[in-house]
Amino acid sequence: MTLDQIKAPIADELDEFETRFRESMRSKKAPLLDKITWYIVQRKGKQVRPMLVLLSARLFGPINNGSYVAASLVELLHTASLVHDDVVDDANERRGFFSINALWKNKVAVLVGDYLLSQGLLLSVRENQYRMLEMVSRAVQELSEGELLQMEKARRLDIKEDIYFEIIRQKTASLIAAACSAGAISTAQSEEQIQTMWKFGEKTGMAFQIRDDLFDFGADDVGKPLGIDIKEKKLTLPLIYALDNASKAEKKHIMNLVKNHSHKPDKVAEVIEFVRNSGGIPYSKKVMEGFRQEALDLLQTLPDSPARQALAELLVFVTERNK
Amino acid sequence: MTLDQIKAPIADELDEFETRFRESMRSKKAPLLDKITWYIVQRKGKQVRPMLVLLSARLFGPINNGSYVAASLVELLHTASLVHDDVVDDANERRGFFSINALWKNKVAVLVGDYLLSQGLLLSVRENQYRMLEMVSRAVQELSEGELLQMEKARRLDIKEDIYFEIIRQKTASLIAAACSAGAISTAQSEEQIQTMWKFGEKTGMAFQIRDDLFDFGADDVGKPLGIDIKEKKLTLPLIYALDNASKAEKKHIMNLVKNHSHKPDKVAEVIEFVRNSGGIPYSKKVMEGFRQEALDLLQTLPDSPARQALAELLVFVTERNK
Repeated sequence: MTLDQIKAPIADELDEFETRFRESMRSKKAPLLDKITWYIVQRKGKQVRPMLVLLSARLFGPINNGSYVAASLVELLHTASLVHDDVVDDANERRGFFSINALWKNKVAVLVGDYLLSQGLLLSVRENQYRMLEMVSRAVQELSEGELLQMEKARRLDIKEDIYFEIIRQKTASLIAAACSAGAISTAQSEEQIQTMWKFGEKTGMAFQIRDDLFDFGADDVGKPLGIDIKEKKLTLPLIYALDNASKAEKKHIMNLVKNHSHKPDKVAEVIEFVRNSGGIPYSKKVMEGFRQEALDLLQTLPDSPARQALAELLVFVTERNK
Repeated sequence: MTLDQIKAPIADELDEFETRFRESMRSKKAPLLDKITWYIVQRKGKQVRPMLVLLSARLFGPINNGSYVAASLVELLHTASLVHDDVVDDANERRGFFSINALWKNKVAVLVGDYLLSQGLLLSVRENQYRMLEMVSRAVQELSEGELLQMEKARRLDIKEDIYFEIIRQKTASLIAAACSAGAISTAQSEEQIQTMWKFGEKTGMAFQIRDDLFDFGADDVGKPLGIDIKEKKLTLPLIYALDNASKAEKKHIMNLVKNHSHKPDKVAEVIEFVRNSGGIPYSKKVMEGFRQEALDLLQTLPDSPARQALAELLVFVTERNK
């Protein structure tokens, strides 16, 4: 199924969301801000997050003003976190040094991120959507906590499967859980429905992140550069599995490569090869499919509807995507 | 009057605030975060902002749980903005280049700022303090908008007095206005009282920022380095006044120095000298005193009390401070 087919039950609503979202970013005072947010809107992605919000809402009733607030809030906060991520991405592109120009962008990125965050807050406070706000605020908190935890662990190369799951739950799954449950809040008839969508989002987010981490080892030929996580000393599931199942000597050797030689492309390639030969890729795929199945099982507890079918298709699309 | 004397009417409450504030920053999950927030608490400043919140609350009744929430919210968001500022300050110290170490701190600074922001949100949502949250969120939005506007204007060196006032209102006065009115919300009996404290905070913030901008020209011997704003091509009130009152040729010469030579200490010194000879310093002091008087007049509309006296003293202390 194509993404457009999956979008069908909420196609008009996604357009309406797009209009409102653009409006929600506008600044009357700082023209530079308008230029940057316009740029952000132009390079919008596959709209997976707004789709998750609106489809989660549509499960329990017609999409209403609260559903749009939820979608805008989630997208504003997600965009803010992407813009803040750029602070570091810029750095990578320039091999550890900033040009003055990049520096300027750096400060701008921090400020634009803060601006988008506060726009999200103001929108939800103005619309009296406090419960959504709490859910999404907690997700933002977990996101920053998760990233910091990952950086700390990366420095020490000290990471086990349970910590990996905790990190990806915080840095990815919690915002997707917030997205699905915020959508549900706008239309749900019961607390149970909201909780189901929280869990659905959490499982979906876990599957999503494991899929993403698999790309780093070339698990599928998607044309993405490989070994970025290794370069940053981020230990993800395929490598954690491979290390757990290696001989002591092999483990020591690979850890040394990651720790001291991850800036050398041939050493990164050696780590990737080690993971590919270890069974870490099929293992991680299986774990990913486990989370996906849990998410699908949760959907099955709800009455059948075009929105439910679309959510299931979206889940499959996102976890089997080739880009 | 010393700061300790001014603090007297709320000394115990400031201690209680300090305990709660530390608690509000704690992370159970990321030890690195705890280390950094501990560092932040250690280097706490003069506590002007919590004093403004708690004294504004004390004007209308005994300090209560809501007053502490207001103080913590304001301080969390203020701290977040300071941490985000560090992203750029680090850069300045390193002459335009980041070491890998500084880069790491850079990413950490962005994430820690986001974490503190979301802690502030969660605190106020949990305590059902939505009105405070809206006020402070708007202040955060204005703060980022104001900084971006200033950067944009700095690039073009295009700034008049009215734009200067708009910038400092956004980047400084609006958070102080939010601080004073958030304090008032916790105890006020009427909407009018809350509005009075908003205006009081705004005028106080304007006076505060003009005072700060005067330091850059050595208006008082406070041992601070001079010409930092000029180096960053930030046109502040003393320089704007001096340019407005200069001959066409002189203006062109000074603008050229700021635009193309602000990295040279002797040229910065020449600009400072030009401002000192222009009458820009007494003019700016007069404007600053005008805002302070407006703030004091607003206080006079409220019944006399130890809190009111302390606020007036604090205002004088802050605007006449020699450091």
